[in-house]
Amino acid sequence: MAEEKRTENVEEIFEETASPAAEEAGGIPEESAVEETSEANEASKIEELEAKAEESENRLLRLQADYENYRRRVKLDQEAAHKYRAQSLISEILPALDNFERALQIEAADESSKSLLQGMEMVYRQLIQALQSEGVEKIEALHQPFDPHLHQAVMQVEDSSYEPNTVLEELQKGYKLKDRVIRPAMVKVNQ
Amino acid sequence: MAEEKRTENVEEIFEETASPAAEEAGGIPEESAVEETSEANEASKIEELEAKAEESENRLLRLQADYENYRRRVKLDQEAAHKYRAQSLISEILPALDNFERALQIEAADESSKSLLQGMEMVYRQLIQALQSEGVEKIEALHQPFDPHLHQAVMQVEDSSYEPNTVLEELQKGYKLKDRVIRPAMVKVNQ
Repeated sequence: MAEEKRTENVEEIFEETASPAAEEAGGIPEESAVEETSEANEASKIEELEAKAEESENRLLRLQADYENYRRRVKLDQEAAHKYRAQSLISEILPALDNFERALQIEAADESSKSLLQGMEMVYRQLIQALQSEGVEKIEALHQPFDPHLHQAVMQVEDSSYEPNTVLEELQKGYKLKDRVIRPAMVKVNQ
Repeated sequence: MAEEKRTENVEEIFEETASPAAEEAGGIPEESAVEETSEANEASKIEELEAKAEESENRLLRLQADYENYRRRVKLDQEAAHKYRAQSLISEILPALDNFERALQIEAADESSKSLLQGMEMVYRQLIQALQSEGVEKIEALHQPFDPHLHQAVMQVEDSSYEPNTVLEELQKGYKLKDRVIRPAMVKVNQ
């Protein structure tokens, strides 16, 4: 505090010495005037350098903040890309899976067809397991309360033996990849 | 900012003026000594500021280069991650595909089995198309020159009716995802 105060006083003194009023008053030796100009030049040089240093510092801080934001965004992007990486292939596979299920629903007419169907059911389960290992899950629909985020109502019926807004039939299976709905279940809903 | 800095300079001047050393030296007119010392101080102040500005500038350039490298690396990583995104699911699906092919090779004993097999063949082709649309390709093996990057030799035979180092039999299909071998073809090679 004492230090600060002293500085203030000195500044006052300096300003008075350097003030044009003092020069106009005459009587000040020329040499002194030159030195004063050089002093003023150096002072302005210092000011300029300090402004430049401050600007560099600010640019550095902005760039650091920018860099940090970018790294954070990249991390989130990479996590999402990794999490849903199989989405495109899964979407391509779902129609084949629908047809697979339809083909498996055929009634076996004889022993030969029966053993063939058993072999295909094994292949089907293996395929489902491969999808599950990537995070694919079937959306529960039948007899569930209708949820517009998971179910797509394509038919409405009135059945007093069921609660209103209940899924009464699943017309096409829906699938989620982790927390993301890949395809909603197509359903018939009770009004 | 400028105001503040000037105050510091003045403070330096004041300190020199107030130092007992200057007073003790004697002989030199007091005013001149003060100015010379003050000039030296300002010159060193300027040097210091210039060094600081240069350092800031260098840090800024290093950070910019670092940032650029990071962006470039991220871009390459993202491209590779996108290109091979389905690899994990594909690897899981391949064993199901092998079994699917084995099941389809069963000879249809009657009309019922025949129509069942036709339906399953359609599902199989749909599955293959889904995989192709993600960039999966079967590796050519049969009667090709043996290529250790694409083929895995599990058996060797000697058959003078074929060129040496030719694949004579494909025991398990191999697959590529774009330019990457997901699974080499397991083959029998002519010595």
